[in-house]
Amino acid sequence: MTPERLARINAMLDQRQPDLTVCMEGVHKNHNLAAVVRTADAIGISDVHAVWKNERMRVSGGSAAGSQNWVDVHNYSSTADAIGVLKSQGMQVLVTNLSDTAIDFREVDYTKPTAIILGQEKFGASEKALELADQDIVIPMVGMVQSLNVSVANAVVLYEAQRQRKAAGMYDRPSISEERRQRFLFEGGHP
Amino acid sequence: MTPERLARINAMLDQRQPDLTVCMEGVHKNHNLAAVVRTADAIGISDVHAVWKNERMRVSGGSAAGSQNWVDVHNYSSTADAIGVLKSQGMQVLVTNLSDTAIDFREVDYTKPTAIILGQEKFGASEKALELADQDIVIPMVGMVQSLNVSVANAVVLYEAQRQRKAAGMYDRPSISEERRQRFLFEGGHP
Ligand SMILES: C[S@@+](CC[C@H](N)C(=O)[O-])C[C@H]1O[C@@H](n2cnc3c(N)ncnc32)[C@H](O)[C@@H]1O
Ligand SMILES: C[S@@+](CC[C@H](N)C(=O)[O-])C[C@H]1O[C@@H](n2cnc3c(N)ncnc32)[C@H](O)[C@@H]1O
Repeated sequence: MTPERLARINAMLDQRQPDLTVCMEGVHKNHNLAAVVRTADAIGISDVHAVWKNERMRVSGGSAAGSQNWVDVHNYSSTADAIGVLKSQGMQVLVTNLSDTAIDFREVDYTKPTAIILGQEKFGASEKALELADQDIVIPMVGMVQSLNVSVANAVVLYEAQRQRKAAGMYDRPSISEERRQRFLFEGGHP
Repeated sequence: MTPERLARINAMLDQRQPDLTVCMEGVHKNHNLAAVVRTADAIGISDVHAVWKNERMRVSGGSAAGSQNWVDVHNYSSTADAIGVLKSQGMQVLVTNLSDTAIDFREVDYTKPTAIILGQEKFGASEKALELADQDIVIPMVGMVQSLNVSVANAVVLYEAQRQRKAAGMYDRPSISEERRQRFLFEGGHP
């Protein structure tokens, strides 16, 4: 690895936010997951959780998702399993949902450890996700369309989280563990 | 038209922001334009400008884009033409661009009449756009990916504009012309 590349990777790792994550439900193509991972990486997310629609796709998709070298993708076959893991990590679990009871996404404190659940493009968030999550959040819309595209909704919420975390100085102090840093550096040096 | 639908459309028109717009360069599929129009509608944009990659596509794409009943799509075959129109309407022209000279997109005052130029997915904003625009803006990224997807970048900038305009009370006072309101109501009632 060149010294420039090493410095670039270390600077990226210094800004990683391991206590902010996204969990996508009903993933059936690696392609829609990739759009979410791309934005997640851009705001410093190190882990994305994917609940696959069916086991068979999960396997092929899961390995393809591994090509995203800089974000760890964790695969599940049920929403309950995924949310169980997120809660055991002490995350507040927010579900993006087009309902009247949801609060405006900007009212949430994203400086806390936070997981954001994204629903399926066709059917939205699952009953299970709504039942297990701590809070529903909605992105206000004033037009005629019924909803935003899921990767757009992901980006709008994540850039609000980025704004709050930047204001709180959370990008100025490294928070990734030394063990993960070494693993990313090793993998990044040996692609 | 039912009274409910009339009220729904009027409420939507009351929040339209005719002095905020997006201009997409290098459009070659109606499909990538549609993603931008969907988010634009959601934050209250009434007009989207599209510079088509080539004339032939422009025609077919232009008519298909007409199916977006609630946002007027204006088609061009050159960026200079589009920016000329936007400037004649008194808009500040901002170009989203991954450069060192671009300012953070949150530093801009979006309560002014504003047009946001989006570049091509592969090559980014054109030389012409960079030359004619008033200001380059960039969305900060701290990961390893080189850029955001264009419809994601559009959404992130538009929701910042929405936030500022909402805070300024610009969604509380109707600003669409009476003539356009009547046209939209007429078209919405006769689909
Ligand atoms: C296309 S939407 C799903 C629409 C579905 N018909 C419904 O009613 O939920 C796909 C996903 O994007 C997210 N989403 C889209 N628009 C949103 C908004 N305005 N607020 C919050 N989440 C949104 C949610 O995660 C949603 O499950
Ligand atoms: C995939 S990007 C283009 C990448 C191209 N290789 C370049 O260097 O510009 C497509 C468009 O999305 C917008 N975009 C993507 N990421 C952006 C960012 N971080 N800041 C501002 N605009 C961005 C710009 O309009 C850009 O032209």
